[in-house]
Amino acid sequence: MTGNNDKSTVKMPGKQDLLAEFSKFFPKENSSTIVATGDDAAVVETNGNQSVFSSKTFIENVHFDLTYFPLKHLGYKLSTVAFSDVLAMNAIPSQLLVSVAVSDRFDLKMVNELLSGILNCCDTVHADIAGFDLTSSTRDLIVSITAIGECEPALLCSRKGATENELICVSGDFAAAYTGLLLLEREKKVFNVNPNAQPDFSGKDYLLQREIKPEPRIDIIEELRRSNILPTSMTNVCDGIADAIIKICKASDTGCTLFEEKLPMTELTFVTLKDLDIVHTVAALNGGDDFELMFTIKQSDFENIKNVSNVSIIGYINDKSAGYNLITGDNLKVPIYAQGFSQS
Amino acid sequence: MTGNNDKSTVKMPGKQDLLAEFSKFFPKENSSTIVATGDDAAVVETNGNQSVFSSKTFIENVHFDLTYFPLKHLGYKLSTVAFSDVLAMNAIPSQLLVSVAVSDRFDLKMVNELLSGILNCCDTVHADIAGFDLTSSTRDLIVSITAIGECEPALLCSRKGATENELICVSGDFAAAYTGLLLLEREKKVFNVNPNAQPDFSGKDYLLQREIKPEPRIDIIEELRRSNILPTSMTNVCDGIADAIIKICKASDTGCTLFEEKLPMTELTFVTLKDLDIVHTVAALNGGDDFELMFTIKQSDFENIKNVSNVSIIGYINDKSAGYNLITGDNLKVPIYAQGFSQS
Repeated sequence: MTGNNDKSTVKMPGKQDLLAEFSKFFPKENSSTIVATGDDAAVVETNGNQSVFSSKTFIENVHFDLTYFPLKHLGYKLSTVAFSDVLAMNAIPSQLLVSVAVSDRFDLKMVNELLSGILNCCDTVHADIAGFDLTSSTRDLIVSITAIGECEPALLCSRKGATENELICVSGDFAAAYTGLLLLEREKKVFNVNPNAQPDFSGKDYLLQREIKPEPRIDIIEELRRSNILPTSMTNVCDGIADAIIKICKASDTGCTLFEEKLPMTELTFVTLKDLDIVHTVAALNGGDDFELMFTIKQSDFENIKNVSNVSIIGYINDKSAGYNLITGDNLKVPIYAQGFSQS
Repeated sequence: MTGNNDKSTVKMPGKQDLLAEFSKFFPKENSSTIVATGDDAAVVETNGNQSVFSSKTFIENVHFDLTYFPLKHLGYKLSTVAFSDVLAMNAIPSQLLVSVAVSDRFDLKMVNELLSGILNCCDTVHADIAGFDLTSSTRDLIVSITAIGECEPALLCSRKGATENELICVSGDFAAAYTGLLLLEREKKVFNVNPNAQPDFSGKDYLLQREIKPEPRIDIIEELRRSNILPTSMTNVCDGIADAIIKICKASDTGCTLFEEKLPMTELTFVTLKDLDIVHTVAALNGGDDFELMFTIKQSDFENIKNVSNVSIIGYINDKSAGYNLITGDNLKVPIYAQGFSQS
C-alpha cells in the first residue's frame, strides 16, 4: 500500500533485498512452518490443511492521510490490503485480527467508523474479525491487521513456480489508484492554499474509488477455481506491475517479457495521466495501491483463461538469462526495474 | 504490558467493557472461528486441531521507553507479551509474525538488535518467525506482533469455565516488574536533572530483569501437562492480579475470594516497595507487566498441583453473588477493583 505515498527510509538498499537479508537468520524449528518469509504470506500446516497469514502495520501520515480518507473507507482499504496477501497465495480469507492504536484526537465514534469499514470488507470476503485490541498512541492512528486464510495444500500458489513460456496474467486494470492519489494530493495542495476552494473531481469517481476503496479480488480466486485453472505462481500487485513480476521471476529463477500495449488501463486513467503530464506506462509499472493479482499459467490454459472475466495476458516467462524486459509500442526492448530490489 | 506506563485515553470507560461493546457487532460467519473476541487469544479450528492467535501493537513512548530499554531486551519482552496470550489458552506457541516500523532515527543494526531479542524469545518457546515486514514510521518505533500457537481442542483453556469452590492459582511472584519500572523511572528523572549521575540499581537486578526481560511461562504449561492437570479456566496476568481474576470471574459468571497473605511476592520486592512508600498489596493487585499465568483447578487437584513448581494457591471461586473480595492480613473483607472494568 506504499509505493508513492511512502516516506520510506528503509527502502534505500532495496526493501525486498533487506527483508531477504534479515530473514536469512530466521531458523525453522517447527515442521508446521511451511513458508516462513519471502512470499506474500506465511503458510502453516495443521493436520493436512494449510493456513495462510499476513500481518501489516499502517501508520497515519506514512501509509494514509486522514485529510482525504474517510475512516470507514480506510478500514475497508486496510483490510483489502491484508486480505490481498492471503488471496495472492490462492487461499480463501477466513479471519482477521485487528489492533488499533488511537490518541485523544480520536473518539469512540471514529473507532466505530473505522471498524465498520473493516467489517464491510470482512463481509465481502466472508471472513470474521477473530481478534480486536485497542490501545493508545501518542498522536497518530496506527492500525495493525493480520489476515488469516485457508487453502488445500494442492491449491496453494507461491511466487515460486513459474517456468519458461508460461503466460503472465493480471486481473483488473492499472495505475487508476495511483492517478486517484495524484488527484487527491493536488486538491489537498489547493485546499492548503485556499481552504474555501471546492475540490474538482468531476468525472473522476472511478480513480478515487480505486485509491480510496480498492476491492479484495476474491472473485478472481473463485473464478479460477470454477474454471479449474491452477496458476503456477502468484503474487499481488501492490507496488506496480514491475515490482510484482520481478518478485515472481526472482522466486521462480526466471526472466520475463511484458508487452506495453497489453498492460490494461482504462481510458479515464490514460487521459487523466496525460493531463497530469505523466507517462502512463511508468504509472502502470511503478504506481502503487492496485491490489490486483498477477499469476502465471501454462500455455495449455490459454483458451480456458478467457472464461475468467477481468483477466489480461500481459506477457510470458523467459529463461533467467533473458532478464526482465518490456516490449514497447515502438517494438523496443527495455529493461524493467523496481524500487524494492537492488539494481545490481 | 501497559498498566502503569500506559498514557491511555481509551481506558476511561473501562477498556475491557469497551472491547466487549465493540465486539458485540462482530459477526461469526465461519464455522472455523471458535473463540472470536473476549478472551486472551482467538481460536480457529482446522481439521480438528485448534490454532490460537494473539495480535498486539507496541508503540514507543506509550508501551516502552527506549531511554532505558535495550532493543534486544525489548524484542524479547514484546515477544513474551504476545506468547503470553497464547500460553494463557493452555496452547503451545508455534510461530510469530512480526511487523516493524522505524524512522531515520533507527539504523539496520538497531533493527537487527530488536530482531535478535525476538529470535531469542522464539528460541525459548521453540517457535519460528513465520512472517516479517519492515515499514516506515514518522518518528517512533512501532512493533506489531502476532503470536500463533497450537492446542488439542480438549486441552484448550479459556477464561470461562471456573466454578464455585475451585482453587485460584498463579505462577511466579508479583509486583517485581512494576517495582523495577518504578526504579527505572526514578533513575530516569535523576538522569534528566543530572546527565552525569550514575543509576543506582545495586541489589535490584531481579526487579529490573522482571521489567526488562520477562519470561514466557511455557514451563508452567509443560509442567501442568506432565502432571495431568487441566485447569478449568486460565488467563495471563499482565495488568495485575485484580484485572486477571475479574476477567476469569466475569467470563465464568462467578465471584472470588483472594487472601492477601497468599499473594506471592519476593522479599526484595516487598522491601523495595516499602522504601518507595507503596503498599505492596496494591502493587500486586494492580501493578502490570508480570506476564504470569492465573488459572483455576478443581479441589481434587489440590495435592497434584504441589508437583508443579512455582505455583501458589491464592484463593477460591465463589458464587457470583459474593462479588470479588480480598481477605486482608487483618481478616477484613475488601472488594477488588480493576482499572479495565467499569465499577458499576
